[in-house]
Amino acid sequence: MSAEYQAPTSDYAFLYGEAFGLDIIARATGGELTADDAVDVIEGAGDFAASVLAPLEAVGDREGARLVDGRVQLPEGFVDAYRAFAEAGWITAEAPVSAGGDGLPGAIRAGLGEIWNASNAAFALCGLLTAGQIHALDAVASDDVRETYLSKLVSGEWTGTMNLTEPAAGTDLGAIRTIATPRDDGSWALRGQKIFITWGDHEAAENIVHLVLARTPDAPAGAAGLSLFVVPKFLVNADGAPGARNAVETVALEHKLGIHGSPTCVLSYEDAVGYLAGEIGGGLAGMFVMMNSARIAMGFQATGIADRALQQASAYAAGRMQGRVLGREGAAPIAEHPDVRRLLLSMSTDVYAMRALGVYVADLFDRAEATGDAQVLALAELFVPILKGWATEEAVALTSEGIQVHGGSGFIEETGAAQHYRDARIMPIYEGTTAIQSNDLIGRKVIRGDGATAEALFAQIDETVARLRSADAATPDASAVAARAADRLERGVAAARRATSDILGFASSPRDAHAVSVPYLLLLGVLSGAWMHALAVVAVSGHEQPHADDAARLRAADFYGAHHLPRVHALAETVAAGEIA
Amino acid sequence: MSAEYQAPTSDYAFLYGEAFGLDIIARATGGELTADDAVDVIEGAGDFAASVLAPLEAVGDREGARLVDGRVQLPEGFVDAYRAFAEAGWITAEAPVSAGGDGLPGAIRAGLGEIWNASNAAFALCGLLTAGQIHALDAVASDDVRETYLSKLVSGEWTGTMNLTEPAAGTDLGAIRTIATPRDDGSWALRGQKIFITWGDHEAAENIVHLVLARTPDAPAGAAGLSLFVVPKFLVNADGAPGARNAVETVALEHKLGIHGSPTCVLSYEDAVGYLAGEIGGGLAGMFVMMNSARIAMGFQATGIADRALQQASAYAAGRMQGRVLGREGAAPIAEHPDVRRLLLSMSTDVYAMRALGVYVADLFDRAEATGDAQVLALAELFVPILKGWATEEAVALTSEGIQVHGGSGFIEETGAAQHYRDARIMPIYEGTTAIQSNDLIGRKVIRGDGATAEALFAQIDETVARLRSADAATPDASAVAARAADRLERGVAAARRATSDILGFASSPRDAHAVSVPYLLLLGVLSGAWMHALAVVAVSGHEQPHADDAARLRAADFYGAHHLPRVHALAETVAAGEIA
Repeated sequence: MSAEYQAPTSDYAFLYGEAFGLDIIARATGGELTADDAVDVIEGAGDFAASVLAPLEAVGDREGARLVDGRVQLPEGFVDAYRAFAEAGWITAEAPVSAGGDGLPGAIRAGLGEIWNASNAAFALCGLLTAGQIHALDAVASDDVRETYLSKLVSGEWTGTMNLTEPAAGTDLGAIRTIATPRDDGSWALRGQKIFITWGDHEAAENIVHLVLARTPDAPAGAAGLSLFVVPKFLVNADGAPGARNAVETVALEHKLGIHGSPTCVLSYEDAVGYLAGEIGGGLAGMFVMMNSARIAMGFQATGIADRALQQASAYAAGRMQGRVLGREGAAPIAEHPDVRRLLLSMSTDVYAMRALGVYVADLFDRAEATGDAQVLALAELFVPILKGWATEEAVALTSEGIQVHGGSGFIEETGAAQHYRDARIMPIYEGTTAIQSNDLIGRKVIRGDGATAEALFAQIDETVARLRSADAATPDASAVAARAADRLERGVAAARRATSDILGFASSPRDAHAVSVPYLLLLGVLSGAWMHALAVVAVSGHEQPHADDAARLRAADFYGAHHLPRVHALAETVAAGEIA
Repeated sequence: MSAEYQAPTSDYAFLYGEAFGLDIIARATGGELTADDAVDVIEGAGDFAASVLAPLEAVGDREGARLVDGRVQLPEGFVDAYRAFAEAGWITAEAPVSAGGDGLPGAIRAGLGEIWNASNAAFALCGLLTAGQIHALDAVASDDVRETYLSKLVSGEWTGTMNLTEPAAGTDLGAIRTIATPRDDGSWALRGQKIFITWGDHEAAENIVHLVLARTPDAPAGAAGLSLFVVPKFLVNADGAPGARNAVETVALEHKLGIHGSPTCVLSYEDAVGYLAGEIGGGLAGMFVMMNSARIAMGFQATGIADRALQQASAYAAGRMQGRVLGREGAAPIAEHPDVRRLLLSMSTDVYAMRALGVYVADLFDRAEATGDAQVLALAELFVPILKGWATEEAVALTSEGIQVHGGSGFIEETGAAQHYRDARIMPIYEGTTAIQSNDLIGRKVIRGDGATAEALFAQIDETVARLRSADAATPDASAVAARAADRLERGVAAARRATSDILGFASSPRDAHAVSVPYLLLLGVLSGAWMHALAVVAVSGHEQPHADDAARLRAADFYGAHHLPRVHALAETVAAGEIA
């Protein structure tokens, strides 16, 4: 009996139109769309999510996906919901124009991603992976593959999956053993077993397109020997319609802690017919397009699951009366108890930080593409592992706070809080564990380039500190918050610079760097969250007349500064220690 | 398919005989028992737990307790296991001599508590609550009640429950509405509904003794109107044997996130016959004896669940090979990957901190009783909310790290890691949420007495800092660790003093104090954990010849100092902020 879902429209209106000092939607679209238009999209998605997807969230958890006589049975309602989702054009909304999609700005897609995941994370994974595959095929596929497969994915008629992991090849993709052998007609025969394949089988769409990493005969060992193949569940007839069943079978579904509604498949390829996507040996590069898309989308999933947990906890705390509330006259709900209020503010200020960073990063990628500016692209790429690693770890902790708000009821499954806690736990694992994100961060994005991109980020934060100090706030309250935010952010960015210099100093003793790479990633995540709140303070300080949400945004920034940001100092101390041998 | 369980015998040998600078078992028993004897008890318990209880842990989770035709059916094997547990004398081992028990030192009972909970937390709750009721009845019950009920509880023939919560009275016990009306024969008739009653019904024992908080007619409103009643499931015949069924019914079992093997009951009292325990209106005081016992036991449960999660993760990481390990020649398991090693050390050093603090606090209560020293008792009582609040919160975070070590397999239920994560989540809620612990801490134990007891703790930590500085360590490694530990602990205790002074400063604005009471509690918990590690460094530094575990204990202290202790600085900054209004 989880709470009703409501899309966070006012936050998106603020992020699109104000938080970054201009209308970022207008900038991204050259004025074709404005923040107001984007909010309309968000509202439409919110309505669809609240009415169609959210009511199925608990059903999906309770029933789960099941394998019956070799066929995957989705939870009650999921098939109809998927069809309605595709027909409403929400898959097409994720696709770029070059692939036949709507080409919406990343900032809008960030909002959509949050909303689908908040209303029903298990369901949302299907569209999330399909969108990732669309981006990958758009980047690497031949015209044939584009015409036959990409168009059907973009229309939402078919769905897509991502096949990397094998029993002996998880984090270490170089160990992949699935073999692709050339066939006479130019296609390939794939043989091997893939595990943990999300939405790997179902009957909501008329076909499923598997994007599979496999090794070609005589390929070099390791990752360089991997190529990418498109393997349809049903072979495609000359007229483009699905025909005979391909030789890929669903051997088992996993029995998981959470996201029960999402079928997690063990797929067996028994000389299944596949088609090369991209160059031979270029599989990892092609898959990386999909992975990158999926990693950013994980930031939106983290925000979504976290916001749903927050909405559940807030609704419970607002409705539950118990005990006299300290310092409050008369009857007050438990939301007013100091520690429940602390938990709710801890959750809501963290959700805002994730949400804002997700929008910021998505917009940054658009700016990088529009301007071709290598430094902007480098900054955007720096943020991918931070967003994925930090937001998913935060979301796990946050869903635990959500349970705590409920007291004993939180431990009872029917309440709904426990589902978020269970669902969230996969996020820091799939699409690359937090350790993998942190290796990417320190290796490719900090040590390579000698910390220049991290320093570019810090310089931007310095600028925000300067703007906080010079802000001519309309109210004394805003002035005080701005001053505190400036002091805290300045100390935070100093800690981040020290930690970065420590990481660079470990360049010749890589175990030291890798032993503290996760703390370093979290440090940059928490600092970025504080930066997002600081930008909100700058925006609010510019208001001549206070807006409705101003007080709440100032309080949120102040709370984040006092409760979340101080972690950077602890993390910096950890980073400085290197490996404890 | 979770890992085999092994009791942490070498840690207990170190804690009993060395860590605190003397044989604390000999001190507690006036030389009747020694640390070696205590280790024998731990080994015996470990064998029983590994062979009888641990194999039922996954069974209990999978089957759960079920209500069939009004009767509670325990998971397969639980009834036999309970009978073997009671017959082996493990319940009697928990009871004081005054109640007919073995009167084992608290430090040994700490170890037993950990072991039962590590091997099977859902099962262990039955004995945990029975032991708590034994302590309560021993303190408040009349001779009649002692003779009829207490003796059967101590023998393990009957089990005990704790009945506080009602649908509208959880944290706020003053709102309890269950009514006890006097009957002609001096007994009472109880009417009302109690929820969340752990092991509230089952058929493993021939009778169940409910200790029930209820309101007498015309009693004053609030907590002062509550009295304590003993209500047996079966009325007791003149010969002491269970007779007719009493009017208490199991209306429902809860469907929970974890501890599925433990029946969590909704009990309905329909003029059930009960017997007063203690004074009319003295119910809360009597129940508090049981609560205090249960809260300390929660520290042991936290250690137990955490250690099991650690054992599971360590076994997996030691056996799983994947990828080349940075800085290691040849094949190495994933346990050697820098970030997996970080996770395992984070877990193991936290488990040691909890385990050591549990033993320390249990021993402190023995010392307080033996000496009658009010300051020692005050220190012991200061630690109850810290141990309960901090250790249970740490255990939740730690079981999450346990899942992370496994990667994708951690999310699959059959692996076993997820059960610990689900089981652990109730601990910061039941027996008083972390907020309740923190209110107790700042209200009764810090602000009352103007911080004197906290200062007594800090003074002891100062002493340890001095001993670290003057330690004449046998190896350069030990010297370096001792020096770092001294510096870190000194900064840590300074942060704790500032935070305490902030809390005292909030005395006139109680919402400020209560809004940061949980961060304050966690600060003292983390600091105490570092103190426990520092005492281990002092003990190890005294070795003329290095012992087998010395290097590991030094590394553990160093790791805790670099990865856990720095949190105190972040928490102190949060405490200083008070409520963000």
